[in-house]
Amino acid sequence: MRISPLIDRLIESLQALPGVGPKTATRTALHLLQHNREGARALAAALSDAADSVRRCRSCRTLTESDFCGICANPRRDAAVLCVVESPSDIVAIELAGSFSGRYFVLHGRLSPIDGIGPEELGLTELPAHVRSSGAREVILATNPTVEGEATAHYIKESLTGTAAEVTRIAHGVPLGGELEYVDGGTIAHALQGRRSVD
Amino acid sequence: MRISPLIDRLIESLQALPGVGPKTATRTALHLLQHNREGARALAAALSDAADSVRRCRSCRTLTESDFCGICANPRRDAAVLCVVESPSDIVAIELAGSFSGRYFVLHGRLSPIDGIGPEELGLTELPAHVRSSGAREVILATNPTVEGEATAHYIKESLTGTAAEVTRIAHGVPLGGELEYVDGGTIAHALQGRRSVD
Repeated sequence: MRISPLIDRLIESLQALPGVGPKTATRTALHLLQHNREGARALAAALSDAADSVRRCRSCRTLTESDFCGICANPRRDAAVLCVVESPSDIVAIELAGSFSGRYFVLHGRLSPIDGIGPEELGLTELPAHVRSSGAREVILATNPTVEGEATAHYIKESLTGTAAEVTRIAHGVPLGGELEYVDGGTIAHALQGRRSVD
Repeated sequence: MRISPLIDRLIESLQALPGVGPKTATRTALHLLQHNREGARALAAALSDAADSVRRCRSCRTLTESDFCGICANPRRDAAVLCVVESPSDIVAIELAGSFSGRYFVLHGRLSPIDGIGPEELGLTELPAHVRSSGAREVILATNPTVEGEATAHYIKESLTGTAAEVTRIAHGVPLGGELEYVDGGTIAHALQGRRSVD
């Protein structure tokens, strides 16, 4: 339904947000205009400032507006352990888990020749030099357990053979609190394959 | 978790959107910055343009950037029937139903003395004159079936006694497709009270 050109444009633009369709966009637009114009203006400014200034950390490639992100700039983060992830949101998930104190390297994707995404696009051509210069002793591959994520992990493992770092892969298996009965077959196969002796 | 000042501010600002908490905001911010900066910039412009220019229709008080909204400016809409609603999103819902060809009057709320919302705030002081000058023969009260919505409907009914318009209330009862078994008691009471003879 058409409301007015400006409101229609706002509804259309709100659908750039992931998971927002026409209905949510309409409700959101009317809510902001009726009850929270200051919020709308603050969001507009935050969006345009971030879109203009956020770029990639010069060390780990995550998103930041500074030359180096907070983690790379933090001298207390252990440079000896480097965790390779597909995207900045993976860093958020790992940081929230709170048990990792090393550094990261963000691919911004995974190898996908069909989409024209090769090693260059993922920063993989710089990774061996990065591992050498950072003195990392261990590189943890935390790409997702999809076909492309596994292929990417495999590629990275190969490309790091010349370095001194041990290359490891995060464990994939039954999630905590997950019941075998409800876990998919692929996960169970992974969990069986990755079994460890009980000490 | 802190990511960077600009990204944190974007995550904070995104929470002005209804139903968006810290998790969705974080995912949304990173998604836009990684994959859709053009969408983020377009959304920023649409938000600030709408926040600056959208005001109320001079006739029906709905949201629009013009003096008169599309419905009020449309000569084919029947001025003889005026539907009073609480908010612009109610107009969207009624228009999508597609069976109403009259005009609207938007209260932007309902009577709520506790929140300091009286007749003046809802445009009710202008409503009788509006009904007279528009020549409306019927005023349909479509405020919500809440205590405050009913009180508002009652107030409007009283305030229009001097006018020539018949005042009606939309029916409240079991929704189409709703099964009695799953409908709440208040709705069933309404449906019984509003029963009509079968012809």
